[in-house]
Amino acid sequence: MNSPLHQFLAPDSIAIIGASLDPTKRGYKALVGLLGDGYAGKVYPIHPKLEEIMGLKAYPSIEQVPEPVDLALICTPAKTLPGILKLSGRNGVKGAVILASGFGEAGETGARLERETLEAARRGGVRIIGPNTSGLFNLHKKVNLLALDAVKPGNVGIVSQSGNMLLALALEAQHNGHIGFSTYVGPGNQTDIGFADYLRYLGEEANTQVATLYVEGFKNGREFLRVARETARKKPVVVYKSGSTAAGQKAASSHTGALAGSYAMTVDVLRQAGVNVVGKSDEILPVAEGLGLLQQAAGRRVAVLADGGGQATIASDRLSEAGLRLAELEDVTRERLRAVLFPQASLANPIDVAGSTDANPRLLATCAEILCQDRNVDQVFLVGMFGGYGIRFAQELAGDERVAAQEIAAIKQQSDKPLVVYSLYAPLKPEPLEVLRGSGVPVYDSIEHAVEVLAALSERGEFAQRDASAVHVEPVPPNAAMQRMIAAARQADRDLLEPEAKNLLAAYGIDVPAQCWIASAADLDTLDASWLDRPVAMKVVSEDILHKSDAGGVKLNLQGRDALRAAYAGIMASCRAYQADADIAGVLLTPMVAKGVEVIIGVSRDPIFGPVMMFGLGGIFVEILEDIAFRSIPLSRQDAESMVNQIKARKILEGARGAAGVDKAALVALILKVASIVEAHPEIAEIDLNPLVAYPDGYAVVDARMILDRIG
Amino acid sequence: MNSPLHQFLAPDSIAIIGASLDPTKRGYKALVGLLGDGYAGKVYPIHPKLEEIMGLKAYPSIEQVPEPVDLALICTPAKTLPGILKLSGRNGVKGAVILASGFGEAGETGARLERETLEAARRGGVRIIGPNTSGLFNLHKKVNLLALDAVKPGNVGIVSQSGNMLLALALEAQHNGHIGFSTYVGPGNQTDIGFADYLRYLGEEANTQVATLYVEGFKNGREFLRVARETARKKPVVVYKSGSTAAGQKAASSHTGALAGSYAMTVDVLRQAGVNVVGKSDEILPVAEGLGLLQQAAGRRVAVLADGGGQATIASDRLSEAGLRLAELEDVTRERLRAVLFPQASLANPIDVAGSTDANPRLLATCAEILCQDRNVDQVFLVGMFGGYGIRFAQELAGDERVAAQEIAAIKQQSDKPLVVYSLYAPLKPEPLEVLRGSGVPVYDSIEHAVEVLAALSERGEFAQRDASAVHVEPVPPNAAMQRMIAAARQADRDLLEPEAKNLLAAYGIDVPAQCWIASAADLDTLDASWLDRPVAMKVVSEDILHKSDAGGVKLNLQGRDALRAAYAGIMASCRAYQADADIAGVLLTPMVAKGVEVIIGVSRDPIFGPVMMFGLGGIFVEILEDIAFRSIPLSRQDAESMVNQIKARKILEGARGAAGVDKAALVALILKVASIVEAHPEIAEIDLNPLVAYPDGYAVVDARMILDRIG
Repeated sequence: MNSPLHQFLAPDSIAIIGASLDPTKRGYKALVGLLGDGYAGKVYPIHPKLEEIMGLKAYPSIEQVPEPVDLALICTPAKTLPGILKLSGRNGVKGAVILASGFGEAGETGARLERETLEAARRGGVRIIGPNTSGLFNLHKKVNLLALDAVKPGNVGIVSQSGNMLLALALEAQHNGHIGFSTYVGPGNQTDIGFADYLRYLGEEANTQVATLYVEGFKNGREFLRVARETARKKPVVVYKSGSTAAGQKAASSHTGALAGSYAMTVDVLRQAGVNVVGKSDEILPVAEGLGLLQQAAGRRVAVLADGGGQATIASDRLSEAGLRLAELEDVTRERLRAVLFPQASLANPIDVAGSTDANPRLLATCAEILCQDRNVDQVFLVGMFGGYGIRFAQELAGDERVAAQEIAAIKQQSDKPLVVYSLYAPLKPEPLEVLRGSGVPVYDSIEHAVEVLAALSERGEFAQRDASAVHVEPVPPNAAMQRMIAAARQADRDLLEPEAKNLLAAYGIDVPAQCWIASAADLDTLDASWLDRPVAMKVVSEDILHKSDAGGVKLNLQGRDALRAAYAGIMASCRAYQADADIAGVLLTPMVAKGVEVIIGVSRDPIFGPVMMFGLGGIFVEILEDIAFRSIPLSRQDAESMVNQIKARKILEGARGAAGVDKAALVALILKVASIVEAHPEIAEIDLNPLVAYPDGYAVVDARMILDRIG
Repeated sequence: MNSPLHQFLAPDSIAIIGASLDPTKRGYKALVGLLGDGYAGKVYPIHPKLEEIMGLKAYPSIEQVPEPVDLALICTPAKTLPGILKLSGRNGVKGAVILASGFGEAGETGARLERETLEAARRGGVRIIGPNTSGLFNLHKKVNLLALDAVKPGNVGIVSQSGNMLLALALEAQHNGHIGFSTYVGPGNQTDIGFADYLRYLGEEANTQVATLYVEGFKNGREFLRVARETARKKPVVVYKSGSTAAGQKAASSHTGALAGSYAMTVDVLRQAGVNVVGKSDEILPVAEGLGLLQQAAGRRVAVLADGGGQATIASDRLSEAGLRLAELEDVTRERLRAVLFPQASLANPIDVAGSTDANPRLLATCAEILCQDRNVDQVFLVGMFGGYGIRFAQELAGDERVAAQEIAAIKQQSDKPLVVYSLYAPLKPEPLEVLRGSGVPVYDSIEHAVEVLAALSERGEFAQRDASAVHVEPVPPNAAMQRMIAAARQADRDLLEPEAKNLLAAYGIDVPAQCWIASAADLDTLDASWLDRPVAMKVVSEDILHKSDAGGVKLNLQGRDALRAAYAGIMASCRAYQADADIAGVLLTPMVAKGVEVIIGVSRDPIFGPVMMFGLGGIFVEILEDIAFRSIPLSRQDAESMVNQIKARKILEGARGAAGVDKAALVALILKVASIVEAHPEIAEIDLNPLVAYPDGYAVVDARMILDRIG
């Protein structure tokens, strides 16, 4: 219990500032919600004139409430907030829920008001939920400030930046009848308290088994990742991040004014931190429910147990698309199944019982148990009409099904393997399925949703394994000479030049091709033989010329002094013509590199998530197909390995079309070193190794760019 | 009414062969279904001993039924079928539903039994539904052979190769309460009647507004495409094709034994024929419902009208992912919205009313009407809590919402633009939403499903436009010389050699690079200057050497007679070493081609769908990224154009990274010519133009392969 939010998200006393007798007002609804649900704490309506509201003594001001209040719900307009928070501070209010909009999301005047509000709160020691929030509830404490009907207490905690999304989830839960909630908070503008703080609270709160977040924008993404990783070790963290497309980002930022980073990057760094990211809004609750009920999976091998071929096929398709695999069953498993099922049953996974269970649904429990015992199976997926035998085949079977459900529930208790059920009878909520749900076995009415749950359980397991075995790379101490080089460049208000960037890489033990920095034509006269007897490349060195090829600043395959002199003159002429006032610091000679697979390693500092590593294949893969892996820095070795294996074009790295594969280990080591450099030199804003040519044995850094944070 | 299936899928008399008093038997359930639902036709139970079943006179044999029967439901085991069909033929039965399994899907013995069954049926003039089918229903005719409870008559016709899938759809419809069905048939093994026949029937049946098919495998895909195109002109055709992954294909073929082609190809050729392909099983009914209720959309520009930012953002994300666009509203529309909404409303699409409607939900109808009148808007998507204002805000608003629903329904009647509603209150079925549904406005409880409907409506519109404007390419008469060349190669039991294939292309007016076929070293002595004064490529010509480069059979950049002689000798030596007994027909000289964008045009004859054209970018795009467009031949000009624009890497064709775009029109013309060649020469089994190098002005056919159907 370290989060300060416990003090007011599970409050023992609540003031309603702007209490009302108008049933359409929040100041009315909240009172109804608290009184109707039987909130056991004290409630203080604040109203300028009335002395009593709904049987409760009312006060003209929060200041007049005779004792300190844990939580104040403030229903008054934006402009009243600084004053009210001042009074709230005097009362000793710990947390204030500010419903009003008209702050930062509404332009400069609103932003100023938001700053004033925050200052007033800080001065009075009041923490702010919102502003521009839909409020909060804590159902186990019977705090229902939204006065929602028919939400029941349960284990799903929610933070949603959209009040309508909370409402949608609540209605979905009400409709399906088997999901309950613990705490909900709407972070609104996150003026004071942000997603990271709320997540930390949900991680600590005992009633919450799964933390579920609808996020339009993070404010401090780096802190969020830290808290997410810590929380994900204890319980599942489910995030739906809106703004996955340019259209959505536009819509999202008009809604809350929060900065939305690249969606692909956000997903990658959230997953790195152990978050289960869901891609569709109708998957949020199903995934949260499954993760809240089941233990993580040890792997991606799923056994499908079906009583109908159609759904078995669909399940196989979806599993495969979700990156799961059909488990290769052990021989003993097939033998045991053969002993109980009809001869026409299909014993290769997916198992189709082919009528064996029509008159005996308990066989499904038997088969599920056999599958759970298979060492090649990580998860069991029961697919078909279980729960409906009594409806479809014969009334008498309902009793057998109930027993089967109890047996399946027992298997779930005894096995450490997740068991998920899809039933086409789920919408009818027949008793056997209610028995399963009551025992913590999730039952879905959509194969697609069930498969998302299986995939999420696998991801949880992978995170746990990665996290437990993570080899953290020791930070390296900054190299003093390189610090001086960077300082000098910043003093000159420029970025590092290519030879400087490569020297910096070399200083940290990265293998960089030989290079020779030629400051003037005269330097060519003194070149040693190593630069004359093999073909070399010559590139202009200039802080002002970013697109060297466009400027005619690159010449390839030069051999011998004459060729070099001619090239030098040509480059100088072209570059002058391209940009007359360019500051040219000579040219760089490097050996020609052999053909290989072009990859890109890059680092940028994201305004939300801080330093982020990027890896992808060069050219069209990054630019057109956007096939890129991102990770937040610092990286573990596992993080770096997973980047290289994540990209869709990884087959090319592994040696497609008869070519040899590249040295992945060398790329992983390089990624980790680049990450260390970024940590050792916070003045480096961006790094771009592009192209980097990867070979079966190592790589060649063909070009390196490093952008600095400029001084002032 | 041309389909012969009307005679027995809407039967006036039904025999139940294998009628039973055992409630778990289909021969019992079917009688209960018919009698319970009040089927108005005659029912004849067939039972070896009983004289009466459920108050109906029973007959010992179908032969003894005193009048011809339209439909026989046969519930007896597989081995009885040939005999029963013989008797059925004598009665004059028009159609027989065979439930038994144990036919072709069960190995060679079963396959023989299936053939015998079909022969008996043909001899007696009986058409077969199945075998291995779950049966059929025709709810408007009260024929409910599955004895399903609680399915209601409606406009969705279904053909499902999985009985469980039908059951799942029926339960989903029962649960949501607003979808009804017309006819269902399970095609089973499609021994006699296949998907194409059933689709034709549904296309003709007046009660069916949308034909919905769950397909594991087609038997005659080409015929299906023909019927699908014809049907899609009249009403929507929705197909879910299972086996979208290797895992699913394995599962599917163990289920029905039907051949499953490449999923990507199947999807492309179905869409070409106007089919709406849905990718997830839980989208089948929502999409069918929406297509059944709404007219097609004229385009992909959607106006989103939301009363909450969260769902507006999610809707924008999903629209964009589905290939739809947020419409750029006309100024006049924004003005009109401004006049009715609060100042803080967001008037850029998505429109967020920002509280304007909280106390006045009828404003949503006003806004929807304004949006429908915008010429830049093709579809309107109402997103949020409509239907729940009376629940969430104030009871009194329910009346306003009902009026608003009526107004929205009126807009739907008057406008030719589809209007789709997502409401988070949909699961509660509040009255205003029931009013909408009753008026034919579809209401969804999932943004994701609603967006699939919008996308499907756009696809319908695009199909209609493409179909109406289709420029069909005139078939070309076969070139007699080429026919002789093909005949000679087939006589020699070989495929066409590269120079032959290129000559064939040239014979049909395709621009092929100059080529010179050198049969022996002596031919090099007589080469004219055009082959000596520019760099050329030399490639071995051999029916036996498929991988020319691997065999050392390709030499590039040769100039001058000496170089050619040396290369010739080298190629011969290498190829002999590679394969001593290879039949080598000399070498082919071609000019070296300039760099460009490598593409592939290919044709294959799919066992299910017949000749299929393939287009993609060369190398990794086809091999690793599988970024390929397929179309069934014959092609319209629009089909060919859509292929070139479909691939994900089309940006490369359009000139990525500063490069010039390629000549798409030339590629389209080439695709059409290749298609004509395939039609003119049915002996050509496969064509592979790979690589084909595309330029800003034209292309170069670098290599061409043509595989022939061998004789015998």
